[in-house]
Amino acid sequence: MTNTQEIYKKKTKNSAKLFTKSKKVHINGVHHNIRFFEPYPFITKSADGKFLKDVDSNKYVDYWMGHWSLILGHAQKQIQKKASGQLKKGWMHGTSNENAISLSEKISKAVPVAEKIRYASTGTEATMYSVRLARAVTGKKIIAKIDGGWHGYTTDLLKTVNWPFDVSESQGLTDEEHIISLPLNNLQESLKILNSIKNDLAGVLVEPILGGGGAIPATQEYLKGIQEMVKTNNALFMLDEIVTGFRFRYGCIYSKMKLDPDIVTLGKIIGGGFPIGVICGKDEIMEHANTSLNSKKNRTYIGGGTFSANPLTMIAGDTTLDVLKNKTNTLYKKLNGLGDNTSKMLKKIFSDDVIVTGKGSLFMTHFPRDEMTEINNAADAAKCDSTKLFNYHFEMITKNGIFFLPGKLGAFSDAHSTVDVKDMKKATEDFVSNFKK
Amino acid sequence: MTNTQEIYKKKTKNSAKLFTKSKKVHINGVHHNIRFFEPYPFITKSADGKFLKDVDSNKYVDYWMGHWSLILGHAQKQIQKKASGQLKKGWMHGTSNENAISLSEKISKAVPVAEKIRYASTGTEATMYSVRLARAVTGKKIIAKIDGGWHGYTTDLLKTVNWPFDVSESQGLTDEEHIISLPLNNLQESLKILNSIKNDLAGVLVEPILGGGGAIPATQEYLKGIQEMVKTNNALFMLDEIVTGFRFRYGCIYSKMKLDPDIVTLGKIIGGGFPIGVICGKDEIMEHANTSLNSKKNRTYIGGGTFSANPLTMIAGDTTLDVLKNKTNTLYKKLNGLGDNTSKMLKKIFSDDVIVTGKGSLFMTHFPRDEMTEINNAADAAKCDSTKLFNYHFEMITKNGIFFLPGKLGAFSDAHSTVDVKDMKKATEDFVSNFKK
Repeated sequence: MTNTQEIYKKKTKNSAKLFTKSKKVHINGVHHNIRFFEPYPFITKSADGKFLKDVDSNKYVDYWMGHWSLILGHAQKQIQKKASGQLKKGWMHGTSNENAISLSEKISKAVPVAEKIRYASTGTEATMYSVRLARAVTGKKIIAKIDGGWHGYTTDLLKTVNWPFDVSESQGLTDEEHIISLPLNNLQESLKILNSIKNDLAGVLVEPILGGGGAIPATQEYLKGIQEMVKTNNALFMLDEIVTGFRFRYGCIYSKMKLDPDIVTLGKIIGGGFPIGVICGKDEIMEHANTSLNSKKNRTYIGGGTFSANPLTMIAGDTTLDVLKNKTNTLYKKLNGLGDNTSKMLKKIFSDDVIVTGKGSLFMTHFPRDEMTEINNAADAAKCDSTKLFNYHFEMITKNGIFFLPGKLGAFSDAHSTVDVKDMKKATEDFVSNFKK
Repeated sequence: MTNTQEIYKKKTKNSAKLFTKSKKVHINGVHHNIRFFEPYPFITKSADGKFLKDVDSNKYVDYWMGHWSLILGHAQKQIQKKASGQLKKGWMHGTSNENAISLSEKISKAVPVAEKIRYASTGTEATMYSVRLARAVTGKKIIAKIDGGWHGYTTDLLKTVNWPFDVSESQGLTDEEHIISLPLNNLQESLKILNSIKNDLAGVLVEPILGGGGAIPATQEYLKGIQEMVKTNNALFMLDEIVTGFRFRYGCIYSKMKLDPDIVTLGKIIGGGFPIGVICGKDEIMEHANTSLNSKKNRTYIGGGTFSANPLTMIAGDTTLDVLKNKTNTLYKKLNGLGDNTSKMLKKIFSDDVIVTGKGSLFMTHFPRDEMTEINNAADAAKCDSTKLFNYHFEMITKNGIFFLPGKLGAFSDAHSTVDVKDMKKATEDFVSNFKK
């Protein structure tokens, strides 16, 4: 590993210099805590298709893909063209625009729960507003989330994100008691927890596939069980599809799972890589936030914000959906296939040394310790050997020009192909042979 | 007024159709509550320089200017060029980039408190993280804000924004008791309130000029008095300069007022109209959020987020500061002059019927009732006749092609000139003569 660090440092001298500058003016040199990795993250110069290029002209096949936003690849041509055109017409009108209507009509068609939509600029905002709506509609206070569930940095959901879950995520939080947390895929225990506070339960917010928590799919049985409990108790069933929306099909994953959420949040893919967060919900719920129908006394006050529904993000999202729609038949089959083949390949090479989780084009490698044979929730994932995973990813960055954000799940985009699976196979075989030495 | 509505409807038939569509899919048809106005807001087709053009080809001289973000005007050429170039290199790398370093070095130089910087994507996020930092650093819980102070839709600061201040801003809030509120420019009363909770005071967050609350400058005496109390009690003094930063000079207004804040938030202008929020602060405070130096147990966990410090926003902000810096000597003199002349002009035409508040290129017209002669805080502003202000703005939209978001303050940009003051003068004279009939 020290050897690999030395190679990395030799190859990224300009990055080293720039990162020193970055640390002088930026907290830990980065603007999202997870973007930092040791000894320092390289500085990206440009990105195109499946590639990131750094300031030392190293080229990486990217599996981080803009926090998994860029399902069509970096700097995708059609989006680029439309965005360039939009720049000439203004990127931020501060008023209403047609692009938002066009995008929403498409979302509404593909995601039935989206009877009404409101755009924010980030997922953090979208989940914050969803929680506020749930509390407002029900008149209750407690929001349940999942251990390891990540819904952005919003105060209202900043609990049990990182292991150990019983340690607060941050100093400076004042209202953690109104958030409770459930173990994914353990329905019995989850229902027990929910039942213990059911009179003050405003809603449950779940990612159908735990994203940051380890690429772990929730089972249909689990989600159906939670949904039933929630509906019986007049609380809201909310799905966070910021990662999963339009990732596996043209639409959300909840429809395939025959779920009936009250609110769904979207983001990432739906904005084509431009800042976006979306709150989608049933009419009767969303209308609580209508300031023309409600007085200050009974309204729910949610954003938007200064940049919400700006015409640039809106046209990028709209173009993304056009491309996804046109390619639906081939694109998702291709992406899901690449993911499936990669999972199989990794399992074969690592044999019992790894568990691969994920679904379709989202996949994550875990190095279990002891006798662990299954990863069903974030606690399982947290018990795996994160140093080994870091080393595996860091070796590929340094020696193979393959970029995973160390320790995180990977995502395929339309810019990837079977060649990339082969390259990853070779890189993984190299790692394993060194690893076994 | 009905007459004006009829004219508006005749001129905005395409907007009417599109807004009907928008209401079908969007809450109240908009993505920021204040963007709605009766009978319906027009739909913008494009924007260039000082102009907004709607889908019926009406052209408006814009004083809303993207929520006062666009100090260089809409679709400014240099920003447009740099942004177009960036699109080819990717708009969202998901990793670190040089553009952020370049922008931060400029901010740090111009805004001394910005020893460390972290980028978020919205002002709502920036103020949320500032509050979290204040609570973390002090180990205390209460945040004081100003009556009428607007810091975005974040849960942590959603109180006493709109009149009446004693009515909650929203259903669904669970922790309002940790926010208290002070009357702007009433130092004695404010200190009384602060002293009553001083043992649990984490910080005070103030806009040096109340923005959404009515364009009302805080006096230096008031801010110095608050600062002194806060520092004496080991709490943080925080200034929200999202509206005022780089609005009156190349830098913040706090330096001119000889204030010494611990944290300053920026946004709007600093991103050139692209989504941004910035937390700037002293080293010792910001380092609490450094996840490499602190374990989960003692860290403060703030964003960032998926889109934070994306290279497109960063290059737009960087270019904006370049242009502002190059033009500093002439630009701010021009903008402040346009604002001052407009204030004088409005006072002259309306005589005692209005009070004009604001500073430099930010200005707002108020129609006081009864014997009111001064507007010193948001309560004063709220007592003015908002219907008259709406009518004035709406008449100008309809009859003169001049756009203020009805009821809100206006802002000059570099794209405006003395011709625009003359046009506004004529429009105002027309309004007054109709109004007096």
